[in-house]
Amino acid sequence: MTDIDRIRAARTRAAGKILKTPVLSSPALDAIAGRRLLVKAECLQYTGSFKARGGWSAISALDQEVRARGILAYSSGNHAQGVARAAQAFGAPAVIIMPADAPQSKIDGTKSYGAEVVTYDRETESREDIGAALSAERGLTLVRPYDQPDVIAGQGTVGLEIAEQTKGLELGQTDVIVCAGGGGLASGIALALEAEAPHLRVRTSEPVGFDDVARSLVSGQRESNERLSGSVCDAILTPCPGELTFPILSRLAGPGLTITDEEAMRAVALAFRHLKIVVEPGGAAGLAAALFRSDQIEGDTVIAVATGGNVDTARFSEAILNY
Amino acid sequence: MTDIDRIRAARTRAAGKILKTPVLSSPALDAIAGRRLLVKAECLQYTGSFKARGGWSAISALDQEVRARGILAYSSGNHAQGVARAAQAFGAPAVIIMPADAPQSKIDGTKSYGAEVVTYDRETESREDIGAALSAERGLTLVRPYDQPDVIAGQGTVGLEIAEQTKGLELGQTDVIVCAGGGGLASGIALALEAEAPHLRVRTSEPVGFDDVARSLVSGQRESNERLSGSVCDAILTPCPGELTFPILSRLAGPGLTITDEEAMRAVALAFRHLKIVVEPGGAAGLAAALFRSDQIEGDTVIAVATGGNVDTARFSEAILNY
Repeated sequence: MTDIDRIRAARTRAAGKILKTPVLSSPALDAIAGRRLLVKAECLQYTGSFKARGGWSAISALDQEVRARGILAYSSGNHAQGVARAAQAFGAPAVIIMPADAPQSKIDGTKSYGAEVVTYDRETESREDIGAALSAERGLTLVRPYDQPDVIAGQGTVGLEIAEQTKGLELGQTDVIVCAGGGGLASGIALALEAEAPHLRVRTSEPVGFDDVARSLVSGQRESNERLSGSVCDAILTPCPGELTFPILSRLAGPGLTITDEEAMRAVALAFRHLKIVVEPGGAAGLAAALFRSDQIEGDTVIAVATGGNVDTARFSEAILNY
Repeated sequence: MTDIDRIRAARTRAAGKILKTPVLSSPALDAIAGRRLLVKAECLQYTGSFKARGGWSAISALDQEVRARGILAYSSGNHAQGVARAAQAFGAPAVIIMPADAPQSKIDGTKSYGAEVVTYDRETESREDIGAALSAERGLTLVRPYDQPDVIAGQGTVGLEIAEQTKGLELGQTDVIVCAGGGGLASGIALALEAEAPHLRVRTSEPVGFDDVARSLVSGQRESNERLSGSVCDAILTPCPGELTFPILSRLAGPGLTITDEEAMRAVALAFRHLKIVVEPGGAAGLAAALFRSDQIEGDTVIAVATGGNVDTARFSEAILNY
């Protein structure tokens, strides 16, 4: 189970290895949001996303002899790089199972951290079967993208930093808007804020049509999305909230927010222009809600987490030129 | 005169008003640089450049009644926004004299902080003459872009942060590469490092053809550039090193470095891809030298300051798509 002690322990293990990312702001964005808007720029994290935290937390928590046998992860994107970086730092071999049609830049990025990339055919092969066979053969330890206590704890260190970085601001009840795929980051932050800054409440943001978390929060049970592709927010398209993450969000999160693809692209462009950060569309979903859902937000201040910046050049160029 | 006490006082006055910017890194950039490369991401500073520091320092140091009469500045853009933001925060009117060919984003940014913008022709008019006339007429106080002790002191706070942020790294003799226009930032950092981290040595980077600082360091006197325009590095095209800044650089800086426009554009693209920050070409000159002049740099680590991110969308898009 993930609790505040586990999150604090994750932070201790990450000292000097995970970047304390800055909180940015701009009067131009405040004007659009209709209130003070603070942006936790987690896209600046090592590997370009918050996933470096969960990967570090999970791998640093393993016994040395278990870790030395090797790490396994399934991912086509940010989690792959977070796990690969941590494994490399501990001298552990990492095997990342990626779809053969994953963007070459992401495969190259994962390899640049020394990982062995095993590709599979999405149509004809099962990554779970490949992973199970490799695990049995080599004794690898699986690091899941969100439904694992030490992964959630690692992502929760973002919440500890938000609590510290906003301490002097005398905030009242304030929403912290976090994009949600499986909910690892949102649930980790929610636990950290419950303990350290209970006046800050997590709310999730998802693309329209992929709002499994928002609908699950309403119904009280884990709802699924009908589709798994078809949004520019590719990094946060997951089938349903996690088994471990949903109970945390159900207890602590406010009502879920949704944004359109166009709003995500506009948020990417505005973050470029006014904050000088590179955010991928999925990573900008929280910022988009903070900017464009002000009627559904209360309080003088809103906090958004910009979660990742691993975006294709063409997509980013499209965002800044056209939105 | 600027000394370490003045820099420390500038930091005290800036508490809570100036962002402590992060130091970023990426294995991909280390590989290109041939050594560990640390990037001080000052483009994330309020107003999108380090100039917010000098502006805040100079304006916060004024007597209240002097400040209330108003502030004057001449600037190609970044200093304009830094001064405008500080003036606005203190409730003082600001008049900013900008070249007519300054990027529209910088003119708009300056106006967004409530300043009055007056434009001039870079080739045929003297901004100093225009400034002097306006000062006399309205009783405004001029805040110079670099040749003013409290401005240099404000920029020097970057050096205090670099000293703090690299304290645990056990660096040997290490170069800190800073792009140079008039040399305010480079000289301020040099003074801060002399006091706080004398193993760190400032070196300037300038575009080929605009290497007045590098040539001045060789000749021992202030040399001028033949041209004042014609590089993508618009933010750092100044006629010659400052009267106050050059003696500091002459005493403390290592040999000057030069980079091409193409290398500046490549550095912009690499910072986008691997650090997730938006840097303007001039602001990337130090990073370009760290990446592409490794034969002229010694030591296991190099530090580059990415000084600003106020770049037009078309230029940035060109950099990331073509370089």
